[in-house]
Amino acid sequence: MKNILVAQSGGPTAAINATLAGVITCAYSSKNAGKVYGACNGIQGVLEERFIDLREKLTGTEELSILCQTPAAALGSCRLKLKEESQLKEIVDILHKHEISCFVYIGGNDSMDTVDQLSAYCRKHQITDISVMGAPKTIDNDLMGTDHCPGFGSAARYIAETFSELERDCHVYTTKAVTIVEVMGRNAGWLTAASALARVNGEKGPNLIYLCERAFDNEQFLADVQEQLKDNDSVVVAISEGIKDKDGRYVSEQVQSSAVDNFGHSYIAGSAKVLEELVRERIGCKVRSIELNLMQRCAAHIASDTDIQESRMLGMCACQAALEGESGKMAAVIRLSDEPYQVKFDTIPVCEAANAEKKVPEDFITEDGHDVTEKMMKYLKPLILGDRTVTFENGIAKHIILY
Amino acid sequence: MKNILVAQSGGPTAAINATLAGVITCAYSSKNAGKVYGACNGIQGVLEERFIDLREKLTGTEELSILCQTPAAALGSCRLKLKEESQLKEIVDILHKHEISCFVYIGGNDSMDTVDQLSAYCRKHQITDISVMGAPKTIDNDLMGTDHCPGFGSAARYIAETFSELERDCHVYTTKAVTIVEVMGRNAGWLTAASALARVNGEKGPNLIYLCERAFDNEQFLADVQEQLKDNDSVVVAISEGIKDKDGRYVSEQVQSSAVDNFGHSYIAGSAKVLEELVRERIGCKVRSIELNLMQRCAAHIASDTDIQESRMLGMCACQAALEGESGKMAAVIRLSDEPYQVKFDTIPVCEAANAEKKVPEDFITEDGHDVTEKMMKYLKPLILGDRTVTFENGIAKHIILY
Repeated sequence: MKNILVAQSGGPTAAINATLAGVITCAYSSKNAGKVYGACNGIQGVLEERFIDLREKLTGTEELSILCQTPAAALGSCRLKLKEESQLKEIVDILHKHEISCFVYIGGNDSMDTVDQLSAYCRKHQITDISVMGAPKTIDNDLMGTDHCPGFGSAARYIAETFSELERDCHVYTTKAVTIVEVMGRNAGWLTAASALARVNGEKGPNLIYLCERAFDNEQFLADVQEQLKDNDSVVVAISEGIKDKDGRYVSEQVQSSAVDNFGHSYIAGSAKVLEELVRERIGCKVRSIELNLMQRCAAHIASDTDIQESRMLGMCACQAALEGESGKMAAVIRLSDEPYQVKFDTIPVCEAANAEKKVPEDFITEDGHDVTEKMMKYLKPLILGDRTVTFENGIAKHIILY
Repeated sequence: MKNILVAQSGGPTAAINATLAGVITCAYSSKNAGKVYGACNGIQGVLEERFIDLREKLTGTEELSILCQTPAAALGSCRLKLKEESQLKEIVDILHKHEISCFVYIGGNDSMDTVDQLSAYCRKHQITDISVMGAPKTIDNDLMGTDHCPGFGSAARYIAETFSELERDCHVYTTKAVTIVEVMGRNAGWLTAASALARVNGEKGPNLIYLCERAFDNEQFLADVQEQLKDNDSVVVAISEGIKDKDGRYVSEQVQSSAVDNFGHSYIAGSAKVLEELVRERIGCKVRSIELNLMQRCAAHIASDTDIQESRMLGMCACQAALEGESGKMAAVIRLSDEPYQVKFDTIPVCEAANAEKKVPEDFITEDGHDVTEKMMKYLKPLILGDRTVTFENGIAKHIILY
C-alpha cells in the first residue's frame, strides 16, 4: 500500500480543484493506494506538516463532483520557491516519516520547478521509495510541454462570455464610445486572445485585440481606434495587462512616474486605465476601462466542461504514474486533432515545463498586430466546449471547503 | 386591432429583454393586437421613427426564449429626457401616423417620467386612442411602487456568486490581505447588500459591507478592517460606489482633487481604489481593489430565474393593461410573502415611481453600519432563486440581435 500526498500551489484557477479531485479519484479507485493526505498551502504546508486526511474529509462521489466546481485551491496555495538543498532533505524526511511514497504537486512553472528539484534530489541520493509527479495548472496557458493548461479553458470561456455580454451592453447607445478591457497575462497573451471567442456565434467580438507578445505603440493604437470609430458607434478593445512598448516598458508604467495620490504614492494604474486616459485626451470621445481582475480566474460557475474534465484526467494521470513509480515528470495533454477535437494524456519530463514560458506564436497574431488569426481560433475553440451542469443551492453554486 | 409600440431605455440589465419578450408574448397571444413595433434607442428612436416590425423579426417561441437570455437592450437605449411639450405633441403625431394605440416603455426613473408626461399630455388634450404604459427596469432597485425591480435579482445573483468565488480565491494564501470590491449604486445600496447573499450556503461572505445610505468614515473603516484582520488572513470588503462622508462628499472624490495623470487630468478613481490606497498607507498589508463594473449588469449567463420570469410577467402585465386601455401606469410586483415567496402583479400610477428613489431602509443595515440585517436577507433571498437553463452554442450563450 502506498500513501499519497497531494498539494496545490500558485495562483488560483477554476480547474485546480478538478485536478485535485482527479488525484483523489485515482487514489480511491486504486487497490495500491493507502492513506491520501492533502497538504495545506502547498510545499509550505508540507514543510510544516499541515496534513489533512482526505479519506476522512471527502467520502462520496457527489462531494468530488462539488469539489470540481469549487474555484481556487481547496487545499490552499503558497508562493514558496525552494532555494536550499536542506529544504529538500527536510521534505524527504517528512515524507519518510509519514510513509508517503507518492507526492503529486499541482501548480504552474514554479511548482514544476519544485517537482524537478525534489525528484532530482531523490535520484541523486538514491531515494527510490518516493515518486514525485507534477500536474499542470495555470490560467496563463504558458507552460511548455502540454498543449494547453488546466484552468486556461475555463478562464477563456469566462472571457469569451464576458466579451460577448459586454458587446451587447456597449451596443445600446448611439454615442461614439470606446471600451478598453484589460485581461490577465504579463508575458503571454493567450487569455487576451480568448476574447476573440466572443465571435463563435456570429457576434463581432472585440474590434481590436492587442497581445503582450507584440510591441505596443500608443500612436498606432490611437490610429486603430480612430479607424474603428469611423464605422462603429461602440469600439471594444481587448488588451493584455502586460502590453509593453518597443523598449519593453510596460504601458501600465507610463503613468506611474508622474501621477501621485493624496499620500504622495505613485499611482498603480492598469494598462487599460492608462489607455483610457490616452483616448480621452487625444480622441475625446466617451471612454471606459474595465479590468476582468480575479473574476477571470475564479468564475467557476461558467467553467469550461472540457477544461474541468481534462483537469481531472490530468490529476488521475499524475497520481497513476506516481503509483506506478514514475518520478520527475508532469502529466500533459497532447492534442491529436482540432476537428474533431481529440487529445491523449501522457507524462513528460518535468524539466521541460519548469521555469519555461510558452508565448503566443507569431502566426497566431495578425500582421497588423491588432487581432488573432484563424490558427489561433482553431486552437482555442475546442477548449471552451461542453455543456456543464453546475449544482446550485439557494441560487449560488455549491462549494467544498476543506479547511 | 390595436397596433403596439415597445421601446427600452436607461442602463442595460440582464432582464430588460425578458420584459420585451413579455410584451411581445402578450401581443402575439392577444387577438386584439395588430402590428407590434419596436422603436430603436428608446424615445429618441420614436421621435426619429426608427421602427422594427417585431412580427417579422421574431417568429417562434424559441427566439423569444433566447431573447430572454440576451443581456442589455435588444432594441437599444437612450438617455433622452423629454423637456418640451412640443416633443410630446411630436410623439403623439407619430403614434397616430402609424396607428399605434398602445405604447409600452421599459425603463427606470427617467423613462417612467416620460410615461408620466406622455400620458398626462394625452389626458390633457383628450387623446383617448393612445394608452401609455411603463414597465420597470433597473439593477439599482431604486424604483418606488414595486417591491423590487427587474434586473436587480440577476445583478444580485451575479454579485453573490462573484463574492462567493472571490472568497474562495482570497482564502488560499496565508498572508494578511484586504480585498475591496466596489459595487454599482450611487445613491442606493441594494446591490452592495446583495454581496451578503454569498453566505446562503454557509460561506462567510464579505467581512464588511458599507452601503451608500450611511455616512462613510475613513477612520472607522480602518478600525473595522484592523479588527477583522485580527481573526482573518483574508478580509473581503463590499462597498457601494457611491459611499460618501458625513458632509455628502463622495469617497471617490477624495483623490481627484490632487492627483493628476501625465496629461494633467484629475484622476477619476473609484471608491475602492481610493480605499485601497488608504489601507496600503495606513495599515500596510497586501491590498487589492476590484470593480465589478459593467459585468454586474450584463452577466446574463448567471441571471436569476425568478428575475427573468418576473420581468417577463411585468412586460405581459404592462402590454395587457395597455390593450385594455389603461394609461399612465406602471406594471409592478407586489410581494405577498417571503417564505414561501409569493408575489402578484399589478399596475400602479406611474407618477408614484417617476423621479423618486427607493433607498435601503434604516433597519436593513446593522447598527454598526458595516453589515446588513436579517430583514435585508429575507428581502433578498428569494430574488436570486430558481434553476435557470441557458442555451449555449460553441460554449457561449446564444443571443438575439435585433438591429
